[in-house]
Amino acid sequence: MHRHQPRMASKRHALGTIGEFGLIRQLQRQWPTSSPRVLKSIGDDAAILKTVPGQQLLLSTDAFVEGVHFDCTFQTLRDVGFRAGVANLSDIAAMGGQPLYLLVSLAVPTSVPAQHIRLLYRGIREACGSHRVALIGGDTSSSPRDIFLSLTIVGTIPANCALTRSGAHVGDHLYVTGTLGDARAGLHILQTRPRWPQQSRLSVPEQFLTQRHLRPTPRIGIGQILAARGMAHAAIDLSDGLSGDIGHICDNSQVGVEIWANAVPLSSHLHTFARHHHLDPVDFALRGGDDYELLFTARARHHTHVMALSRRTGVPIAWIGEIKPKHFGQRLTSPQGRLRALVQKSYRHFVA
Amino acid sequence: MHRHQPRMASKRHALGTIGEFGLIRQLQRQWPTSSPRVLKSIGDDAAILKTVPGQQLLLSTDAFVEGVHFDCTFQTLRDVGFRAGVANLSDIAAMGGQPLYLLVSLAVPTSVPAQHIRLLYRGIREACGSHRVALIGGDTSSSPRDIFLSLTIVGTIPANCALTRSGAHVGDHLYVTGTLGDARAGLHILQTRPRWPQQSRLSVPEQFLTQRHLRPTPRIGIGQILAARGMAHAAIDLSDGLSGDIGHICDNSQVGVEIWANAVPLSSHLHTFARHHHLDPVDFALRGGDDYELLFTARARHHTHVMALSRRTGVPIAWIGEIKPKHFGQRLTSPQGRLRALVQKSYRHFVA
Repeated sequence: MHRHQPRMASKRHALGTIGEFGLIRQLQRQWPTSSPRVLKSIGDDAAILKTVPGQQLLLSTDAFVEGVHFDCTFQTLRDVGFRAGVANLSDIAAMGGQPLYLLVSLAVPTSVPAQHIRLLYRGIREACGSHRVALIGGDTSSSPRDIFLSLTIVGTIPANCALTRSGAHVGDHLYVTGTLGDARAGLHILQTRPRWPQQSRLSVPEQFLTQRHLRPTPRIGIGQILAARGMAHAAIDLSDGLSGDIGHICDNSQVGVEIWANAVPLSSHLHTFARHHHLDPVDFALRGGDDYELLFTARARHHTHVMALSRRTGVPIAWIGEIKPKHFGQRLTSPQGRLRALVQKSYRHFVA
Repeated sequence: MHRHQPRMASKRHALGTIGEFGLIRQLQRQWPTSSPRVLKSIGDDAAILKTVPGQQLLLSTDAFVEGVHFDCTFQTLRDVGFRAGVANLSDIAAMGGQPLYLLVSLAVPTSVPAQHIRLLYRGIREACGSHRVALIGGDTSSSPRDIFLSLTIVGTIPANCALTRSGAHVGDHLYVTGTLGDARAGLHILQTRPRWPQQSRLSVPEQFLTQRHLRPTPRIGIGQILAARGMAHAAIDLSDGLSGDIGHICDNSQVGVEIWANAVPLSSHLHTFARHHHLDPVDFALRGGDDYELLFTARARHHTHVMALSRRTGVPIAWIGEIKPKHFGQRLTSPQGRLRALVQKSYRHFVA
């Protein structure tokens, strides 16, 4: 399936030709490990890192499987690498940390050209953007049929500042960054369009929504400020969808929640798309995963600080609900003012 | 293929039934994260760890793919977990470090019963043995067809003590722990026997060799002593086979090597097996991977200390060669005294 990628260079090496060590040498050139904290990087049995006094470590790992998390009939391996990188960075953002080091575990069929593998790494590097994340390790193997990718990210955070899922208090405001549901609508467009649509053939709303799926933004800066200033009580990144991920905060913090459907931030493009397809845009926001926005709770008296943070950084932050006692449950107030139970059902990637 | 495992419990849950969160809860019960350095473990966006002043971090990741690194027609998922755990721990052993934390990224077809997945984790836990390695993170996903496993290990080592591949000096002795080639012979036996052989039907040498494949030992203790006492200049664990792995030390250290075929340590069981099959046992030692023994270099004047270490720990250590200038190349002295180039060819797992 990964043989259908557009704009391929004519020079096609399979990994079997350049070999794992050839790939390592290329990565070492393209992805210098310039940090003075990295004493040994890829190419030995393990990476060696200096630690910094007063800093705690954050570690997270994510698996991405062809046919489950991605589909090479409408995504390039560069897209796949980008989204995988964002998903992994977003876990550090949700803790309020600084991403520093990445390890990439990859298995690809020998028929996949080395050029495609390089594009995958390029996508990961692009996701890291300006964050100066060093590639410190990895393992590349052949795979009989499907592509498997597993990323492990290491970050740091000043001691006792990390935001967790378990810190929400009754009475906290519930906030979310950006707009929700766009990525899921973008995925719907990509899945239902003919193969390899030219971006020019997509309408403006469709272009916006597909880009939100293909090029999400990890909210690293906002997470760091919320953690460093002690402004948030609990946080999580939206990977499964609002209705599922708020459930993790409620379960871990032993609280309930009321979410106001009217307050859930939706892009005008999602409204246009939903109207056109006779769908409920709020449903996309509640159940649509992979937005990688931050969902967090903060004391009510910090409200003006949170709004000021949004203005200063230019990142939209919406107040969408309130943390309630556990016996209240997890509920949604509809635009008509009716309170109903929040169904913790999220789109499970590509599998129905 | 994983449906052919013997001695299965009758209660069969697919991962789809217990779900990822059910699995996480089970793992939290079975694998307590008791270390005071682990502030947050599995169940949040990232694990939070305290660092220790004066200690450096070691990180390594390894991928294991069904049909490439393992074959469920003659291995249980417990065997697979054990070997994957050892391979990952062995990377820390080769640096001279203390393994501390593990992250497990796993993709399995939904048809694999949850009981099998638990066996896989049990195998990983058994490989960690007495080393008190905490499971601090992971990701579990479905997979369309094949099982994919990626382990990331975090270890520590006192500052500036780590053994690398690049520290070998001309004139160093070359040593190896244990006996070589057993695991490869064991794999050969497992691959060519009928499915699910009862251990009782194997001869004593066959039992020994298959156990060396299924239950290898990471040389963590020896690695730590070599590093802490500054006894070794360079080290690597034998995962690809002696002839391939010595090449990594030579390339990284810019040196050559002479290995004496007569001195390569072979078990009596490998001799018996090789005689029976009219094969050269030294060839198994040179090209056979997955022994997970330590290959290291040390100053000639440390020879008596190395031998004393072997006696004290009960771990056999053999002096098998000498580090030469780079222009000497990488050579093997045959039992007949002939010097020939060492062919850097290792068995590439299951793929020919």
